[in-house]
Amino acid sequence: MIELVKKGRIMMDFSPAHSNIPVYGKPVSSYIRKTMKVIFLFVILTVSNLNLYAQNNQKADSLMLRSIFDNALTDKRIEPDLFYLTKNIGSRISGSENARKAIEWAKAKMEEIHPDKVYLQEVVVPHWIRGSKEASSFTTKNGKVAVMSVSALGGSIATNGLLKAQVVEVRSWAELDDLGLAGVKGKFVFFNRPMDPREIEVFKAYLAAADQRAKGAIEAAKKGAVGALVRSLTLSIDDFPHTGTMNYEAGVNKIPAAALSTKSADLLSVELKNNPALLYTLQMNCKQLPDVKSYNVIGEITGANKPEEIISMGGHIDSWDLSEGASDDGTGFVQTLEVLRLIQERGARPERTFRAILYINEEAGAHGAYEYARIAGLSGEKHIAVLESDAGGFSPRGFRIDGNPEAVAKIKSWKSLLTPYKVDDIQPDQRGIDLIPMKDISKVLISLTCDDQRFFDIHHSGLDTFDKINIREVELGAASMAAMVSLISKYGL
Amino acid sequence: MIELVKKGRIMMDFSPAHSNIPVYGKPVSSYIRKTMKVIFLFVILTVSNLNLYAQNNQKADSLMLRSIFDNALTDKRIEPDLFYLTKNIGSRISGSENARKAIEWAKAKMEEIHPDKVYLQEVVVPHWIRGSKEASSFTTKNGKVAVMSVSALGGSIATNGLLKAQVVEVRSWAELDDLGLAGVKGKFVFFNRPMDPREIEVFKAYLAAADQRAKGAIEAAKKGAVGALVRSLTLSIDDFPHTGTMNYEAGVNKIPAAALSTKSADLLSVELKNNPALLYTLQMNCKQLPDVKSYNVIGEITGANKPEEIISMGGHIDSWDLSEGASDDGTGFVQTLEVLRLIQERGARPERTFRAILYINEEAGAHGAYEYARIAGLSGEKHIAVLESDAGGFSPRGFRIDGNPEAVAKIKSWKSLLTPYKVDDIQPDQRGIDLIPMKDISKVLISLTCDDQRFFDIHHSGLDTFDKINIREVELGAASMAAMVSLISKYGL
Repeated sequence: MIELVKKGRIMMDFSPAHSNIPVYGKPVSSYIRKTMKVIFLFVILTVSNLNLYAQNNQKADSLMLRSIFDNALTDKRIEPDLFYLTKNIGSRISGSENARKAIEWAKAKMEEIHPDKVYLQEVVVPHWIRGSKEASSFTTKNGKVAVMSVSALGGSIATNGLLKAQVVEVRSWAELDDLGLAGVKGKFVFFNRPMDPREIEVFKAYLAAADQRAKGAIEAAKKGAVGALVRSLTLSIDDFPHTGTMNYEAGVNKIPAAALSTKSADLLSVELKNNPALLYTLQMNCKQLPDVKSYNVIGEITGANKPEEIISMGGHIDSWDLSEGASDDGTGFVQTLEVLRLIQERGARPERTFRAILYINEEAGAHGAYEYARIAGLSGEKHIAVLESDAGGFSPRGFRIDGNPEAVAKIKSWKSLLTPYKVDDIQPDQRGIDLIPMKDISKVLISLTCDDQRFFDIHHSGLDTFDKINIREVELGAASMAAMVSLISKYGL
Repeated sequence: MIELVKKGRIMMDFSPAHSNIPVYGKPVSSYIRKTMKVIFLFVILTVSNLNLYAQNNQKADSLMLRSIFDNALTDKRIEPDLFYLTKNIGSRISGSENARKAIEWAKAKMEEIHPDKVYLQEVVVPHWIRGSKEASSFTTKNGKVAVMSVSALGGSIATNGLLKAQVVEVRSWAELDDLGLAGVKGKFVFFNRPMDPREIEVFKAYLAAADQRAKGAIEAAKKGAVGALVRSLTLSIDDFPHTGTMNYEAGVNKIPAAALSTKSADLLSVELKNNPALLYTLQMNCKQLPDVKSYNVIGEITGANKPEEIISMGGHIDSWDLSEGASDDGTGFVQTLEVLRLIQERGARPERTFRAILYINEEAGAHGAYEYARIAGLSGEKHIAVLESDAGGFSPRGFRIDGNPEAVAKIKSWKSLLTPYKVDDIQPDQRGIDLIPMKDISKVLISLTCDDQRFFDIHHSGLDTFDKINIREVELGAASMAAMVSLISKYGL
């Protein structure tokens, strides 16, 4: 583009007024020009000095956002970063050698940007490994062996050889209660409640079904089950199991827990109707290894005017082990590097201190986030906003914000600045797991909202690969986060 | 789902109030319940009968939209339809055997739905064929042969053997003028102005660059050029040429016109800087065959109360020949079948007449749409709204509406009904090519707006295949159009 502009002979003038790139909160169009006189008159007649001041600010702010988006959409740094992270490093479950490589690489990438500080924050994390591939099948009534697509849920114990038992299918906790010990003892409990396709937000359908994965093994064990089988949390009907973290409860027997692909779940469900006594076999070789010393990676730009007030934006380093973790959370990972670049390249130092944080082990307990919050609390740091991008990296739509009501209202007053970039959907109930530990420390918690129609098709499965990602969508998300950070940095909360 | 509900023992009650599926314009939440009393008091104190009536209507309408979306998101008809169209039929350029197959299949699919009428509307269409694959290359300064990825633009003449000439690169009409006859005569003109990545709406960047493809061959020929080479209209940098229609002008010499992949365009541009006299070779074997008798496919449901008032929704049958035409316009094609189903399955007949229209030859002159409008005009039919889905079939965002201002205002008054489905972005400047001929016949023209970040990466290229499509996004678009049709049918315009 620069070369073009230098030539000064471009067919399409790239200046906002001509290229129709939105500035001043709405696209400049002939319609707008026609109504200028009316608006001008209105301004003269009714606008107070305060409003004029607000308007001048809005003009400056809209130009600031425009320059952030222009940089993000033309610097072309997201694609090579995400390619390296997914293809040269790959899956990076916490405690693994790949997680260590990702931490080293992230530190080096942050240092290339030359913020005031780049440092590692020590965190002890669990180290769970899948071991050799799981094996699972059952024999149908007509003697055929049906091989199931399964994967151990993160944190599950192994089966210690081949575990063989009958299966009871449930689609509600009530059904499990009704079965009681008599109905469950010595069997697998098969949690087969599908996500609701009628939810417009797939994320909501996911949250409404995730309890099966989170506590299925606990509730099944309380009734004497030998294992938990959980339908994969996706609306796709395919052969890819979707893993994810599961829990055990002190005093409750630990039983193995596996995710079944939706096709395997449907097949098992149909067979159980004709053949309720079928014997199901599962072999898993996963293992919890000793905890490992690991790190959060932090880059910091000291604020020019109020360095004591901290705004942070981050994503998580770790991913599940079944794929490259491109979408969860490779996109948030590279956006964190990009936001640090965008803030650093704004020329002037931000008014307040900005921290880019890459958290370790979001997927299996958010150990990195809890350690970060513990130290932030101990040191009495003044955190005004913590942002996270961990919603897939698809087309950004806006933000989910929790916290101090006045602060939230102030952010909402900037809505018109975000409208030209189509990221002005501001909702409550933020969804960043790594933000939760900062609840009582930071004024607000802010998660990026992305279009979620595609996310859960690939989430936590072997399908979460680089080719599913649209780079421009990730660039737009990074720019949106940098814009929000810049506005908070300028005005405070 | 039905089976679950019958069992009556589901963990998650699927009724709106519990599953948090939005009804009444916003999700039902505890917060809402808490504020019910306040709202009730407010209603008692201030609301007029008219408002109460309006509220009752809104409740009925929100339930109507909810049931349309529930049907679209659970009936699972989009996926097999789009699979058949793209994989069993495939590319379907107008006049081709595949276009004929698509028309037959569409008629049969509409008949399966049992509307009141299904009929073919005869249209004579052009029949252009690409012939054997294009060949293009140049020899670099250091003697290497650089093979270019090119494809003839739709409607272009052939080269009649190997066309060999020097190349002049331009990025603006001004540059072309400055070169003049002396600079252009006997050469290829290489139109290499890229789309602007800084546009948030990629669609706008496309529209701002498309003039090069539309009139490049005309303007180049006026200055004596032997051929036109046009940079592919995409932001992706890859080896896939993107074709599309081009034009000739009466009295201006016809010259061959080809699209270069963005990588080929960049390579040629770099080489021209060191080697401005390089000889470029192009061979294209495309041909305009005699016109062919073809058809629009129309399904109609007669209105119960005002059958004389017609609302139509459509997409186009034809696609370019380089791919399966999954996104352009396979998605609009299957959405048209689905909207017909959704309206037919609403139980009660619509108040006004609904027509599902599959247009032939949108890509090369909109012959089908012009013929439809000609007959609608001749017969004096009363068309109140024509809708089209031809924007890629990605996550729907809203509608672009042109026409009678009162009618547009009426549609905008329904915005809150669309908000729960995230399709409430209502803008002017509709983008459906097939709607343009109805400008003076229908009260309003309405095009579906989809997220456009991914569309132009695949548009008109070999990449426009089934695997790029997210079926839920297409289902949501179909439901959005069925909802708009149903509201217009109920209230009129």
